[in-house]
Amino acid sequence: MTRDTSKTTRSVQIEKPLLSENDRLAQINRTFFGERRVSAYNLISSPGSGKTTILERTVRAVHPDKKFCCVIEGDQQTDNDSRRIAATGAPVKQINTGKSCHLNAREVSQAIQCLDIPDGSILFIENVGNLICPTAFDLGESERIVILSVTEGTDKPEKYPNAFQSADCVLINKTDLLPYVDFNLTECRRLISGLNPEARIFEISAQTGDGFEDWLEWLCRVRA
Amino acid sequence: MTRDTSKTTRSVQIEKPLLSENDRLAQINRTFFGERRVSAYNLISSPGSGKTTILERTVRAVHPDKKFCCVIEGDQQTDNDSRRIAATGAPVKQINTGKSCHLNAREVSQAIQCLDIPDGSILFIENVGNLICPTAFDLGESERIVILSVTEGTDKPEKYPNAFQSADCVLINKTDLLPYVDFNLTECRRLISGLNPEARIFEISAQTGDGFEDWLEWLCRVRA
Repeated sequence: MTRDTSKTTRSVQIEKPLLSENDRLAQINRTFFGERRVSAYNLISSPGSGKTTILERTVRAVHPDKKFCCVIEGDQQTDNDSRRIAATGAPVKQINTGKSCHLNAREVSQAIQCLDIPDGSILFIENVGNLICPTAFDLGESERIVILSVTEGTDKPEKYPNAFQSADCVLINKTDLLPYVDFNLTECRRLISGLNPEARIFEISAQTGDGFEDWLEWLCRVRA
Repeated sequence: MTRDTSKTTRSVQIEKPLLSENDRLAQINRTFFGERRVSAYNLISSPGSGKTTILERTVRAVHPDKKFCCVIEGDQQTDNDSRRIAATGAPVKQINTGKSCHLNAREVSQAIQCLDIPDGSILFIENVGNLICPTAFDLGESERIVILSVTEGTDKPEKYPNAFQSADCVLINKTDLLPYVDFNLTECRRLISGLNPEARIFEISAQTGDGFEDWLEWLCRVRA
């Protein structure tokens, strides 16, 4: 949000120009990615859905040379997640957003400059844990991945539809916990497909690796 | 967010006036509650932490006459949660926020008028599932309850500190899943107390009822 808390009269246009500025910068990021054949994935979910654990396992599996698999980590505070990713050998840049509830295209642009991403790379952007606000901010990504864990309940797509409507792919994570929670996979898939018939849906467990074959196969295919 | 997307030049002051207007309405709500001896609790958490299940069990236990225990439900879409609460016999009003990521004091004020809350009641306000944005919006509540489930990971208080810093009470929910997830209760308590030494912390399972005695005892005590 543009900050102007002074009491003097000034001309400020909000929301539309703010989003337009973000869209302009997102388009610059998108061009950058396109020119370098970089596949950029924007990961959006609630806090605690398992984004970082998914990335740890995905990064380890997806490219034999880790320098071709870069990660941008978004959190309000701490570098906990970037330290976990760094342990995989992948180049990583942490963004701390402070009080802000989402990543924006400018932050991603600055992180790209720090990362020095090689041509033909994969870039994962782990957004701030928030199922709502990041949805409205294009980062220039190639694909948007929305993650839901089975502990969050079957009806989340219906209650927070915007994220699911904007997804290219939905990961239903923590399937290893299905025996212990009240979650209806068939119904959840039906709700997601009702909102967004084009979205690919994969059931995975980042803890055990179940379902990763199909998810990784999709990742490779959308890069081709 | 104030909307002004026209291209003409107009004077708009943002953020501070917006919050001041919310604060002004929150103060009116607070006075309303004070005059009627209504205890109002604002429940904030990520989607899927178990807020509604906690409320179902709490509402059933907390007052023999359900008309003295009212609930306001906040979600972007659906009346799923208000239907669950209505089944307990408690008066409930659903607010659908559409694209908005939090409840504000005006919405709560309007819901209060619909609910016709008796003097001496308890009012639970279940905020939109979002651990970040609702933190910045006072609703006039007596107490703020922040909920974290053990499936979300030990380090969430550290990564999203604002909610925990503003809490009067933190509920660590879904303790029935502790055997199946990697979660360190002692460390999580230490992180919460480091951010907010005054916050009361209860470990509960809304599924089994474990820990509810202490939580309900606290609720009764802060009303006294």
